Amino acid sequence: MQFKNDLILRAAKGEDIERYPVWLMRQAGRILPEYRAVRAKLSGFKELVETPERAAEVTVQPVDLLGVDAAIIFSDILVVPEAMGLEYQMLEAKGPWFEKTIRSVDDMKNIDVTIDVEDRLGYVLEAIRLTNKELDGRVPLIGFAGAPWTIFCYMVEGKGSKTFSESRKILYTNPTLAHELLSRITDVTIQYLKAQVKAGAHMLQIFDSWAGILGTEQYAEFGMKYLEKIANELNEVPLTIFSKGAITSVPAIAKLNCNTIGLDWNMDIVETRKIIGESRTIQGNLDPCVLYAAHSEVEKQTIRLMDSFTSKRHIVNLGHGVYPDVDPEKVKTFIKTVKDYELRF
Amino acid sequence: MQFKNDLILRAAKGEDIERYPVWLMRQAGRILPEYRAVRAKLSGFKELVETPERAAEVTVQPVDLLGVDAAIIFSDILVVPEAMGLEYQMLEAKGPWFEKTIRSVDDMKNIDVTIDVEDRLGYVLEAIRLTNKELDGRVPLIGFAGAPWTIFCYMVEGKGSKTFSESRKILYTNPTLAHELLSRITDVTIQYLKAQVKAGAHMLQIFDSWAGILGTEQYAEFGMKYLEKIANELNEVPLTIFSKGAITSVPAIAKLNCNTIGLDWNMDIVETRKIIGESRTIQGNLDPCVLYAAHSEVEKQTIRLMDSFTSKRHIVNLGHGVYPDVDPEKVKTFIKTVKDYELRF
Repeated sequence: MQFKNDLILRAAKGEDIERYPVWLMRQAGRILPEYRAVRAKLSGFKELVETPERAAEVTVQPVDLLGVDAAIIFSDILVVPEAMGLEYQMLEAKGPWFEKTIRSVDDMKNIDVTIDVEDRLGYVLEAIRLTNKELDGRVPLIGFAGAPWTIFCYMVEGKGSKTFSESRKILYTNPTLAHELLSRITDVTIQYLKAQVKAGAHMLQIFDSWAGILGTEQYAEFGMKYLEKIANELNEVPLTIFSKGAITSVPAIAKLNCNTIGLDWNMDIVETRKIIGESRTIQGNLDPCVLYAAHSEVEKQTIRLMDSFTSKRHIVNLGHGVYPDVDPEKVKTFIKTVKDYELRF
Repeated sequence: MQFKNDLILRAAKGEDIERYPVWLMRQAGRILPEYRAVRAKLSGFKELVETPERAAEVTVQPVDLLGVDAAIIFSDILVVPEAMGLEYQMLEAKGPWFEKTIRSVDDMKNIDVTIDVEDRLGYVLEAIRLTNKELDGRVPLIGFAGAPWTIFCYMVEGKGSKTFSESRKILYTNPTLAHELLSRITDVTIQYLKAQVKAGAHMLQIFDSWAGILGTEQYAEFGMKYLEKIANELNEVPLTIFSKGAITSVPAIAKLNCNTIGLDWNMDIVETRKIIGESRTIQGNLDPCVLYAAHSEVEKQTIRLMDSFTSKRHIVNLGHGVYPDVDPEKVKTFIKTVKDYELRF
C-alpha cells in the first residue's frame, strides 16, 4: 500500500520522520457534530457499530475534519465478548450492560469458546474494507481489540465497576477458570486481529483499560501472559499496547513483541523513556482535560509535552479517549500545534 | 492514656512491638450482621453517622467481634463538605450525591469558608468521646478525614466519577479557584482533625481516595501541597497518609511529616520500602479480594504478605476497605493469621 501520509507507521517502526504524527483516542465520535448527525439517523451506538457503511463514514470524518495522521476503525472492544455469546446493550449515560455473565465453570456454557470471526464479526471487517476505499491511502487505518484481562472483566462483571471485585475474586477463588476464560478470549482476539489485518488494518492497538486495578504480580499472571501471546502472534503490522494505569508493569510491557507503548496521562514520559530505552515508540499522553482550557493553554501544554520527548520515537495522542464535551476547535489547536512543532532530533 | 493494647501506636512510631498490629479499613460496618442490626433501626447511613451513641456502638463492634488492634470512628469523609454548606445524600447502590456543586467562582457562595467545627461537626466529636468511654483503653481510636484533593473532587463533581474530568478541568481552566477551594478545605480539615484529637482520637488517617487520577506533577501541586500543610499542623498523635493509587508520588509522600504511609493493594511493599527506607511505617496492603478465597488461601496470602516485610515498621491492613459481601469469618482468619505470625526482626 502506498500512503500519501505514512508518518505514523514510520514513527511506530522507529524510522525517520519529519514531524511527530498525531491522532486521538475516540476521535471518531461524540465530539463531532457530523458524527452526531450520522448517529441520530440510527437507533443507537450499536446499530452504528454494526452498520459497515455508517461505521466507515464516521471513521473517516476526523481525517477530513480534524486532519489526524491516522484513522481508527469505529467499533467497540465489546464486540468480542458478544461474538462469543454474551450479548450487550449500551445504556445511555450508564455504559455497557450484559444480561449474562461468567462467574462459574457452569457459566462457561453461556459462551462459544471457538467462533468463526469472519462470520460473527464480519461487519467490522467490512467496515475496515469500506473505510480504506474512502481513505484511498490518505492515512493508515488502525484496527483494535480489548486486551483479554479487560474483556474478562466485562464478561465477569457484566458492566463497568469501581473495584472489579467480582473479576478479581475469581483470581483467588478459581484461578483455573480465570485462565481458561482468558485463554479462550485470547484465541478469539488473535483470530479477530489477524482478520482485521487481512481486511486492511495497517496498525493494531490493544486496549487494556483495567490493567491498573491489578498489582504487578497479578497483572503479570492474568494480563501480561496473554498480551505476550497476542503480541507474538501478530507480526505483520505495527502493534501498540495501551495498558492504562499499569505504571509498575512498564518494564515488562517494554519486553513485549510490540512497536509502541501507549501511556495514560498519569504516566511520566521521561521516566518511561528511561525504563524502556529507544527500542519502542511511546504513544500519548496529553491529559484530555487540557482540551477544556483556552487555546493558548492547549498550545502551551502540547508544546510542553513534546519538549519532554528525548527522541523521534513518539506518536502524539491524549492519555485517554477525548471527552465528549470537548470543543472540536480545541482538538484542532492540539493537532495544529503538533504539526507545527519543529523536531529537535 | 494507658492502653491495654497500644501495639498500633508503637508500630506507627517505629517503637518495639511483639507482633504486627492489624485492623481493616471499613471494619466498622457493612460486613457485620451486628452493624446491620443497628442500622436497620435507623433511617439510613447518614442518621447513623449523625447519632453519636449509635456511631460509637458500631465503632466498638469490630473490637469486640473481630479482635482488631484499633477502632476507627464510624463516620464519612463527606461530613466536611457538608459542614461547609454542601449537603449530601447517600443513595442506595449509587453512593453520595450533592445537590449543589462548586464549578465556578460564583459557586463559592454556596459554601462557608470558615466554620466552627465544634458546632457543625460536634456529632463526630461526641461519637469519639462516647467510643473512648466504651473502649475503656482496650485499643486506640483512629480519627480521620478526607484529603483536600479528594474532598475537592466531591465538591466539584457532586458525586463519584470514573474520570473526575470536571475536577481536573478546573486545574487547567481556573487553577486560582482550585487553589482557593483547596485552601479552604485544608483549613477546615486541620481544625476538624485537631478537634478530633482533643475529643480523644489517638491516631489520625487522611484518605486521599482519588490521588491516583492525577499525574505526579499535578498531584504535587494540587494534592501534596495541602497534605504537607495538614501534616505540619498535626504533631500530637501519629498520622497516616493513604494516597490511593499515587504510586509515583511515594517518594514525595515519604517526606511528609507523618508516621505511616498507607498502601493500596496495587502497590508493592518491597519496592515501597526501598524508596522510603525505615523512617516511616507502612500500612497495608492485602488485596481485599483475598478474603473471598478459602480460609487456607486467606492464611497463605496473609503470611505471604508479612513474609515480604523487611522490618518491624508495619501495620497490617487491607489495601482498600473491606468489601461488603465478605464473610466475617474470613476476616477473623486474616486477623488470627496476623496475630499468630512470629516476628523475624
